[in-house]
Amino acid sequence: MKIIAVDPFYLRMPDITAAADGTQDTLLVRIRTDTGLEGWGECDASPLVSLAVYCCPMSHGNIINIRTSLIGETLDSPEDVLRLNEKALRNGLDIQQIQHAYSGAEIALWDIIGQKLEQPVYRLLESALGERAYSNKGTSDIAHPKLPYASVLFGDTPEATYRIAAELHEQGYRAAKFGWGPMGKLDEANDIALVRAAREGMGTEAQIMIDAGVVWGTDYDTAYQRAAAFAQFSPTWLEEPLAPDAIDAYGALAGLLKGSGVTKPAHGTGVPIAAGEGSNNYRMAEDLIVHGGIEFVQIDAGRIGGIVPAFQVRQLAEQHGIQYVNHTFKSHLSLAAALHVFATNPDFNLLEYPAAGSELSQRLVTEPLQVDSDGLVRVKELPGLGVRVDTEAIRPYLAPVRIEVGEDTVFEPADF
Amino acid sequence: MKIIAVDPFYLRMPDITAAADGTQDTLLVRIRTDTGLEGWGECDASPLVSLAVYCCPMSHGNIINIRTSLIGETLDSPEDVLRLNEKALRNGLDIQQIQHAYSGAEIALWDIIGQKLEQPVYRLLESALGERAYSNKGTSDIAHPKLPYASVLFGDTPEATYRIAAELHEQGYRAAKFGWGPMGKLDEANDIALVRAAREGMGTEAQIMIDAGVVWGTDYDTAYQRAAAFAQFSPTWLEEPLAPDAIDAYGALAGLLKGSGVTKPAHGTGVPIAAGEGSNNYRMAEDLIVHGGIEFVQIDAGRIGGIVPAFQVRQLAEQHGIQYVNHTFKSHLSLAAALHVFATNPDFNLLEYPAAGSELSQRLVTEPLQVDSDGLVRVKELPGLGVRVDTEAIRPYLAPVRIEVGEDTVFEPADF
Repeated sequence: MKIIAVDPFYLRMPDITAAADGTQDTLLVRIRTDTGLEGWGECDASPLVSLAVYCCPMSHGNIINIRTSLIGETLDSPEDVLRLNEKALRNGLDIQQIQHAYSGAEIALWDIIGQKLEQPVYRLLESALGERAYSNKGTSDIAHPKLPYASVLFGDTPEATYRIAAELHEQGYRAAKFGWGPMGKLDEANDIALVRAAREGMGTEAQIMIDAGVVWGTDYDTAYQRAAAFAQFSPTWLEEPLAPDAIDAYGALAGLLKGSGVTKPAHGTGVPIAAGEGSNNYRMAEDLIVHGGIEFVQIDAGRIGGIVPAFQVRQLAEQHGIQYVNHTFKSHLSLAAALHVFATNPDFNLLEYPAAGSELSQRLVTEPLQVDSDGLVRVKELPGLGVRVDTEAIRPYLAPVRIEVGEDTVFEPADF
Repeated sequence: MKIIAVDPFYLRMPDITAAADGTQDTLLVRIRTDTGLEGWGECDASPLVSLAVYCCPMSHGNIINIRTSLIGETLDSPEDVLRLNEKALRNGLDIQQIQHAYSGAEIALWDIIGQKLEQPVYRLLESALGERAYSNKGTSDIAHPKLPYASVLFGDTPEATYRIAAELHEQGYRAAKFGWGPMGKLDEANDIALVRAAREGMGTEAQIMIDAGVVWGTDYDTAYQRAAAFAQFSPTWLEEPLAPDAIDAYGALAGLLKGSGVTKPAHGTGVPIAAGEGSNNYRMAEDLIVHGGIEFVQIDAGRIGGIVPAFQVRQLAEQHGIQYVNHTFKSHLSLAAALHVFATNPDFNLLEYPAAGSELSQRLVTEPLQVDSDGLVRVKELPGLGVRVDTEAIRPYLAPVRIEVGEDTVFEPADF
């Protein structure tokens, strides 16, 4: 079949705040083929900047937009997806935003191929992407359930955080991550009080994770002091204490933690460090793993360029004996894509599960990935991504975009 | 003073081709202050995608556009530039294109501060950016002339390449870089014939550089074979044989070259490898230097986020004993910015000098950086960048941009 249309759509809530809530707007990408098959993907990125990558006029052979790369192309197999990925990235070599933007298209391509081959995406990845360390266990096309952790923001105070945690515990969550907000903004005592409140609200049995939201920049000493102070509350990890590209600082932090007396029950020494959501390409994730010494690598398939590079980071994590986790702070369209990437590895058993997203993000798909009665989330055994965009429900959030450059209209709204 | 306007302008030639010629279009950034001072900068990036970073609606606290970060801010000193850099990058943490886009604004900020303090930018950098290894030589505020190398594309054939080289030799160039075009596209014999033609056209006394334009991707074996085969023509370097993020492949290539019997007169062993123009932030350049084993690092201040991160890479090159070179394939506005970064280091004596740019790029500034009678190029001892944008000459190339999102016009043309 041939690709006949590649349409990005900007959707947003009526009011957008500066809170670290990625569900206030989104960029969806719809790809249509001449056989009537249609796939969807979602980007975790600035909608307008990413949309521009679909329609920007050519500057030279290294700045060619995504529509030009894809429209008219043949799409019949996973190999075609790999070929088109290479083409789109090569054509966009000098577009810094290329991975953020292309992620949505790449996910949509997999959605289409899965529908065509009548297979869930996760079953197509192993054969398309070759041998991997884990396949020795012989589990390569069985999906395993994941323990969802609610991903929420800290409350503005320890008391507010306690209430949020207690409510999640009430709802049955066995794991929850608390992030951003006041963490790192006041002083050590407040930081500790926030983590204590999260632990007390969730109870001693639950897993809690702490997301520092890059607040300490390159200051690995402070990050180390907090990691030591938080150990008493046994967090599963301390996430993004440092800036995404502060690799040497991550390495120094890992060195301090491994040499320290900080211990927590579930692990050997130190509080494990998690990072990776800021990986805009495979190399950034590799750099964090190899030189940053992280123990959990968190990849957003909606940022890193789609399912293929995410899967390659998963393979790297398997080689290094660290844990791969999704980063997802968008709708269940993103969650489905994220889950296909690592569904077949039972050791990668945690799933970031957006629990407090906007109305837009909650209405975006017709049948979200529910938490089953055993408290776990399973990939849908349906062709493609297994979720469908509810265009009627989200129509009110559509923000039609029009872009003119000189005499040319380079982008105008498609039907939705 | 206060920043009152931040205006990006998209300019382009009437016809754009897929040739690897970065001068066919451009994005200029003009910043105005309430005292009437005005600064300009140029981005080497997709104009439309980068322009979107100046006006994209806020998505959350990590996706805030550049205009919002800068307008209304105080700008009185180099320290203010550093503070605003930090603010703009932090506000744009989740905008992948942030460095490409912000580069033009950052350069414009330096242009303004230089004018205000009545100093050329290069003299302000040392004190603002702290100690560096090189300052031991006591040359920290004297600018040194550079040997310009013409930066041209290979001809389509060895014969055409010979004619281009001979013409550059005729024009008095003592160094020239030949790149892209047919290199790596046919076979080894043609690749060698292209380099031979460049050498023969330029003569035995001249320096020649070879730019492979990332053509061998991750295939360091082929890159090694070409580096060995080209050694007979004594190129100063072989540039970008591999993809920008193929760091391990660069490291493997460096290992092969250092262990090989390939020798060339001007250097110890092997053909030195140059790379770095694809560095979209400081870490990417650091990664190439530390793990990729390159011997020349080529930085585009119009991509990496401006003059400050470029200067920081220069400092890193000094620490590692490798050579810093500018990457410039835009107008002399970019060239001026590039030159201020490393003007004070006499050992960094080569300057990429666009020699065959579009009419637009040649008309962009009123008084370009000429090659002096001794064949060298000097930074202008004038306040700020030392060059002025010729708005009248380039007005015909202006492509006014208008962007609507929902009911809002988020970008419309400013006066030019």
